[in-house]
Amino acid sequence: MKIVIIGSGNVAYHLAKAFQENKIPVSQLFGRNENDLKFISDQLQIPFSTNHLEDADLYLICVSDGSIGEVSKMITKENCLVAHTSGSLPKEILEGNYRKASFYPLQTFSKSKEINYAEIPFFVESEDEQDLELLKNLALKVSEKVMVSTYEKRKYIHLTAVFACNFVNHLFARAKEISDSQEIPFDYFLPLIKETTQKIEILEPKLAQTGPAVRNDERVLKLHEELISDEEQLKIYKIMNESIKKMYEL
Amino acid sequence: MKIVIIGSGNVAYHLAKAFQENKIPVSQLFGRNENDLKFISDQLQIPFSTNHLEDADLYLICVSDGSIGEVSKMITKENCLVAHTSGSLPKEILEGNYRKASFYPLQTFSKSKEINYAEIPFFVESEDEQDLELLKNLALKVSEKVMVSTYEKRKYIHLTAVFACNFVNHLFARAKEISDSQEIPFDYFLPLIKETTQKIEILEPKLAQTGPAVRNDERVLKLHEELISDEEQLKIYKIMNESIKKMYEL
Repeated sequence: MKIVIIGSGNVAYHLAKAFQENKIPVSQLFGRNENDLKFISDQLQIPFSTNHLEDADLYLICVSDGSIGEVSKMITKENCLVAHTSGSLPKEILEGNYRKASFYPLQTFSKSKEINYAEIPFFVESEDEQDLELLKNLALKVSEKVMVSTYEKRKYIHLTAVFACNFVNHLFARAKEISDSQEIPFDYFLPLIKETTQKIEILEPKLAQTGPAVRNDERVLKLHEELISDEEQLKIYKIMNESIKKMYEL
Repeated sequence: MKIVIIGSGNVAYHLAKAFQENKIPVSQLFGRNENDLKFISDQLQIPFSTNHLEDADLYLICVSDGSIGEVSKMITKENCLVAHTSGSLPKEILEGNYRKASFYPLQTFSKSKEINYAEIPFFVESEDEQDLELLKNLALKVSEKVMVSTYEKRKYIHLTAVFACNFVNHLFARAKEISDSQEIPFDYFLPLIKETTQKIEILEPKLAQTGPAVRNDERVLKLHEELISDEEQLKIYKIMNESIKKMYEL
């Protein structure tokens, strides 16, 4: 089976790397950004092109949501399978006379951070059983966790991930603003952060909640509001505490 | 040096355990809740009492913020050092004619979750140098990370921890509501969560941000808002995305 990866961003890089580590050959990297393609190509010894899309059995479109439709039109071959890697688009966004599919890795990718691919859940969806088997088997070579998921479900998986990952990272960024403002090294908080996430592997998050809001400690909540000088930080502080109190009916 | 720990909650339990693991003898556990004291006492083989506070050189008050003042009055001894473990109270909250101090471990504690104490940052403060050395040396037997901190700074350390730990855990709880509502196992998200926190050990949180808001992907943001049926989830969703956009000036 000939595989072409389209795109040169974080997802393209990590999928290509995951495939390489698991001895799944990738025939070509295809995209617009020559520098990014060259970087991945150099790292992984996979040929790349910015203008000639090679013939393949499977095309994996790893570009931003807004570009998937346009990019999918470039595949003029008909007897092939095309999958995109977006969490929030149906496979029908793909525009061509080929078989359509979704191949969604649930992870946050940055080029500069190595990842244990075996742990990544993959969610796959296709038009027929045969393609589903193909995508499942492909994902199973990389990861132990491969599931079939409809678009309806995938949307919610992505939404959950936004809360559990994107928003969590933003809280880290806002927390760092506060510690930076007082010249407190952010490193001090890393063991706490590690423990916060390790804890929910054995305890339900709802049972693991600590802090002033769940104790209904009005004195500390008021003290903190007085300490916060940034408007965005204060909005987050208030909304999160209100939400904690509502969850525990305080 | 004779040490008495006052309290029977999560902090009392884990401090007593950290001391025991590092061969620092604790003479007595003292508190109100006999069942909780008995649990810790049985686990760690430390005597406990609910009515007779033993004579000691150092009393560590590990009770909730609201009770520290009251509890501190029970120590009638004068030639001794008394420290509380709160992140958001000055040492002056302690009411007695003894030497006052603060001994603040920056961690989230639950009795059912084991902790690597060597990684916990301890922040200590006292009235004089001699007591400061005593508390620093005590903390250094448990942890590699011991810092001196004023109340002014400790307040901000605690505030930062609320963002980086308490609010993060609440996002996990809200995320789980969403995945539960669609019968998606929350376990699927654990590798993503682990990666989100591992990433900031090597990347600034601001540089590690991913997701629809930082990409300014209005289509996905609108789609997600339509998917969310819970009012609290929606408030968090909107505030967090607004805050992300403001941080990156989108």
